[in-house]
Amino acid sequence: MVIVMNIDATDKQISDITNLLTSLGLGYHISKGEEKIVIGVIGDKKKLEGKAVEMMEGVEKVIPIVEPYKLASKIFKPEPTVVKVEDIEIGGSNIVIMAGPCAVESREQLFESAMAVKKAGAQFLRGGAFKPRTSPYSFQGLEEEGLKMLKEAKELTGLKIVTEVMDVHSVELVAEYADVIQIGTRNMQNFPLLKAVGRINKPVLLKRGLAATLEEWLSAAEYILSEGNKDVILCERGIRTFETYTRNTLDLSAVPAIKKLSHLPIVVDPSHGTGKWHLVAPMAKAAIAAGADGLIIEVHPDPKNALSDGAQSLTPENFETLCEDIKVIAKAVGRDFV
Amino acid sequence: MVIVMNIDATDKQISDITNLLTSLGLGYHISKGEEKIVIGVIGDKKKLEGKAVEMMEGVEKVIPIVEPYKLASKIFKPEPTVVKVEDIEIGGSNIVIMAGPCAVESREQLFESAMAVKKAGAQFLRGGAFKPRTSPYSFQGLEEEGLKMLKEAKELTGLKIVTEVMDVHSVELVAEYADVIQIGTRNMQNFPLLKAVGRINKPVLLKRGLAATLEEWLSAAEYILSEGNKDVILCERGIRTFETYTRNTLDLSAVPAIKKLSHLPIVVDPSHGTGKWHLVAPMAKAAIAAGADGLIIEVHPDPKNALSDGAQSLTPENFETLCEDIKVIAKAVGRDFV
Amino acid sequence: MVIVMNIDATDKQISDITNLLTSLGLGYHISKGEEKIVIGVIGDKKKLEGKAVEMMEGVEKVIPIVEPYKLASKIFKPEPTVVKVEDIEIGGSNIVIMAGPCAVESREQLFESAMAVKKAGAQFLRGGAFKPRTSPYSFQGLEEEGLKMLKEAKELTGLKIVTEVMDVHSVELVAEYADVIQIGTRNMQNFPLLKAVGRINKPVLLKRGLAATLEEWLSAAEYILSEGNKDVILCERGIRTFETYTRNTLDLSAVPAIKKLSHLPIVVDPSHGTGKWHLVAPMAKAAIAAGADGLIIEVHPDPKNALSDGAQSLTPENFETLCEDIKVIAKAVGRDFV
Amino acid sequence: MVIVMNIDATDKQISDITNLLTSLGLGYHISKGEEKIVIGVIGDKKKLEGKAVEMMEGVEKVIPIVEPYKLASKIFKPEPTVVKVEDIEIGGSNIVIMAGPCAVESREQLFESAMAVKKAGAQFLRGGAFKPRTSPYSFQGLEEEGLKMLKEAKELTGLKIVTEVMDVHSVELVAEYADVIQIGTRNMQNFPLLKAVGRINKPVLLKRGLAATLEEWLSAAEYILSEGNKDVILCERGIRTFETYTRNTLDLSAVPAIKKLSHLPIVVDPSHGTGKWHLVAPMAKAAIAAGADGLIIEVHPDPKNALSDGAQSLTPENFETLCEDIKVIAKAVGRDFV
Repeated sequence: MVIVMNIDATDKQISDITNLLTSLGLGYHISKGEEKIVIGVIGDKKKLEGKAVEMMEGVEKVIPIVEPYKLASKIFKPEPTVVKVEDIEIGGSNIVIMAGPCAVESREQLFESAMAVKKAGAQFLRGGAFKPRTSPYSFQGLEEEGLKMLKEAKELTGLKIVTEVMDVHSVELVAEYADVIQIGTRNMQNFPLLKAVGRINKPVLLKRGLAATLEEWLSAAEYILSEGNKDVILCERGIRTFETYTRNTLDLSAVPAIKKLSHLPIVVDPSHGTGKWHLVAPMAKAAIAAGADGLIIEVHPDPKNALSDGAQSLTPENFETLCEDIKVIAKAVGRDFV
Repeated sequence: MVIVMNIDATDKQISDITNLLTSLGLGYHISKGEEKIVIGVIGDKKKLEGKAVEMMEGVEKVIPIVEPYKLASKIFKPEPTVVKVEDIEIGGSNIVIMAGPCAVESREQLFESAMAVKKAGAQFLRGGAFKPRTSPYSFQGLEEEGLKMLKEAKELTGLKIVTEVMDVHSVELVAEYADVIQIGTRNMQNFPLLKAVGRINKPVLLKRGLAATLEEWLSAAEYILSEGNKDVILCERGIRTFETYTRNTLDLSAVPAIKKLSHLPIVVDPSHGTGKWHLVAPMAKAAIAAGADGLIIEVHPDPKNALSDGAQSLTPENFETLCEDIKVIAKAVGRDFV
Repeated sequence: MVIVMNIDATDKQISDITNLLTSLGLGYHISKGEEKIVIGVIGDKKKLEGKAVEMMEGVEKVIPIVEPYKLASKIFKPEPTVVKVEDIEIGGSNIVIMAGPCAVESREQLFESAMAVKKAGAQFLRGGAFKPRTSPYSFQGLEEEGLKMLKEAKELTGLKIVTEVMDVHSVELVAEYADVIQIGTRNMQNFPLLKAVGRINKPVLLKRGLAATLEEWLSAAEYILSEGNKDVILCERGIRTFETYTRNTLDLSAVPAIKKLSHLPIVVDPSHGTGKWHLVAPMAKAAIAAGADGLIIEVHPDPKNALSDGAQSLTPENFETLCEDIKVIAKAVGRDFV
Repeated sequence: MVIVMNIDATDKQISDITNLLTSLGLGYHISKGEEKIVIGVIGDKKKLEGKAVEMMEGVEKVIPIVEPYKLASKIFKPEPTVVKVEDIEIGGSNIVIMAGPCAVESREQLFESAMAVKKAGAQFLRGGAFKPRTSPYSFQGLEEEGLKMLKEAKELTGLKIVTEVMDVHSVELVAEYADVIQIGTRNMQNFPLLKAVGRINKPVLLKRGLAATLEEWLSAAEYILSEGNKDVILCERGIRTFETYTRNTLDLSAVPAIKKLSHLPIVVDPSHGTGKWHLVAPMAKAAIAAGADGLIIEVHPDPKNALSDGAQSLTPENFETLCEDIKVIAKAVGRDFV
């Protein structure tokens, strides 16, 4: 931590700070420049919790140096984490594709989707049984009935299941049916929920919050990791910006940035990231070229009649073409999609 | 709802849409311009749920006309809602001030804060017993012990209590101790939580999400209202923008905008809205001048030693000065703070 | 400047940096923490220009400590700057109001506006002769003819004139007619234009860029100041965010923030800041309550028939009511509007 | 254009609007819903310029249907524009790479850069002779001397030259030396400059503004096209968002979106788009996978000693590796880089 003071700070103001640091067992070094006085703090900054140094007289700002997350950090664990789901590895050399409808609507719709995405090469079936919707009047999901259908679809196709959990008391229920539990973008900072999924023995797909910085996102992962669950998969799904042509702005630079900061695998959701089906394929290819470990894509047998997010869903035909293209792109960046 | 098609849409593409509308019992009118064909849809657009018209051939975009919220809308209820908490009215001619520490830290800290804000004129004591914190390693609140202290502080001072609930299974517990239940910014779209507080008989203070539009915010209020709880108070607390000098960008234009769109009362949180104590007083005054019904302000007896958010907390002395100023500003806009 | 290195930086990597600093005549101090090594640089950081320390092996980031602007800084000049325009002071105890139509459209429209705003109490007439428009097909202004009408309106009413200049070669022309020269939001970082208005002897109203931080805005002011023109007035006019209900998000916290960082006066434009006439009056009052030195407001005798920005223009009647309200608010914050 | 009115609008309010439309020679159709009245306007909306329909009694909002740009639109010209610069085509099947230092610093630095990027396969040399810098105290470029060096570098290597122009009166000068004239991000809405480059006979590289929507960007292109210059190349270079880890947020979805909306070619600048050299290569590959027609990349023989933007510059070695990778990616999306 670095404490910046005005050049006209008094000796008393400076000694108030250094006395505080000393009393907490912290070291320091003072540099007087021409315009600022900078105090570098040495030692564990946690000792300063509950001390609002910014409030002390003469202090202009306090600049943190150490990231707020540890277990999620590449410094803590330099080798990449590979999350295993039965025979599938996420974060290894193989690209993983999770695909399926936004919401589970019916047995027919789900099975048709499942068979189509299986055939094209996806390893996971996605589908929401609990749906977070902006309006209380929109379709809210089939709930447990939907979970059961997902399990049947798994039995039918062998696809692994990824589905969302929205509150603490459904965690056990969802974990019974899912292979990977998804935390949605609106719940990225639902801390009781993060802690709850941190205590179970299932991989968690953690979507980036609509307005979350990389640091906040990794801190949210830290909540899960610090409860003991080491299998966290990050998912970039677009952030909110001023641009309205796309539903969100897909921040693909998050992919190489996360690879630099963290050991956790990262997948990309170009469906929510763009909100328009005709942008999904180019952005999916771009995600793999940028180094993503996988994709999560909305596919619906009949997008025009989807109960949710039809406009951003691919048809099975378009999805199949995309999977063919992903094979080629994966190879071009030294990976495989098989 | 208005459907915009390319001027080169075929007759078949147009009739596919009109046939769909007719089959659902909806009317329509077609206008052919020089560059676009516009189909205005007449009737209840809910009939179109599950029909992704954007996906139909020749369609360029679909523009919604009707807001997604109803109960929260001024069209539905033109007269302003006044929320009553015992003898205090929020949304009436009197300005309401909620003040206190970010987190309940100890009996002494809380009581000292409570007596100070009471003396200055606040009607509510704020203070977090459950604290949403970006890092799992930060102080997370005293939980039920903190709630009990809040109740004692109420008995001591007569101040009403506003405090945050973070998950569904704590709603009853918090409702036992609080006069107003706060939904924090990170939970604005935690839909199970919104439904849960919609079913209790206590007013809810709904903070605006970090990246929530006015429409999404009012739709979140709709979740609460549609469960039966009519006592929703909105709270503007800053949105996330590119500016980093302030912690958030306090969007005061939300105050008159909400007054135009909705009947619900609105208060402003200049502490989180700015993140810097020296900006709190000017922005508090500005909020009242813009038409806010009240303020929620962090006050700590010793901000330098606050366990949370010290840098944005006022001292009791500064808060007292601010309350004096608010009296004058309130009068200048035809209201009172007494 | 503070250089942050990974804890596993080698001795060679550290000495490469310290050797560089020494060779440039700069001092330094090294603090080794548990996770990072921090090198504080002592001396004039300009000596480091053209040295991308971030690129050196082992360096994680470089944190600047000193602001990039000097002449605009309160540290450089603690007492507030008061800009004088004949008998009017901007930045003194009196509130200044600049009002008039978005664009000069005709002699009648301008004179009617001028007389109306004069009667209500405005000291300045605003009106664009050169108009920056998003589309090339929109009305682009009357140019020199418009400037002449502004001068006539000044002779008629005694109002001072503020009007925009859009390019270097019109600076002299506009300066001939205007009392204050406006640099529009799209030109805040048009550096040749900033330098050009820095060399003339007329006050400059510098609007904040659509996506400019406070630091960038003050750095733009620095361009003008560093050429010799000391009379810069800042104008907050809304920034671009994700919210679409308002045309921009008026960042009123910029007012007390600028007062903290700089000695320059600041006025607020609630017309562009909101884009909706019914939000103008509440936000104008809020601006004065937040400490602004003045307002710039669009007033049109017949907003429905304005060639530009009608939807955000006040009628003369609404403007007169607002001016009455501003008198009361100004008094409530210890200032006057007369 | 669609005019939305409150359901309680009076007959008089409605007829005021329809009378206005009729008087201007415009048709209309009225749809009465349960909550809104919608008036669809038929005919050339330019007739409505100078009529602020939003201001008329009973009107809630006005929704434009037709884009503000025409010549830049794919509807106007469905086949893609290929810009020819001598023997090089931008927008054809071949990928074009523009590379070189941020600023021209010296003959040695420029020639070394030029030879390195030529060897790796770039077709264009980039380099700034006029530099827009946030602070007036930063290096501002070698100006005409820099332009002369660029010309020499062209003679030496055969590379085409792309360089920035910052104001109207330098347009002719820059056009003398450059093969493609760049309009920088800060000047995207410098309308006099756009008109000036619209009147010359050289291709223009138009960078997206820091906070510009796709619509505003294409409207800026329209300024150039409408003056007669048909050779506009768009350049996505990152937009400003709340994320601070990257210098900007590179919006790659702009690539397929622009391909949908416009016939103009688009290149991507991953150097400014990320601000960190280690993110440049993955984002460059992603850009090509997303469908970009080319790249513009900062390469410096000695980034640590660059006078500008060293931290985001590639070394010649890294650039060479990237060019090899681009060949493979280009092939994977059916294009070539040779």
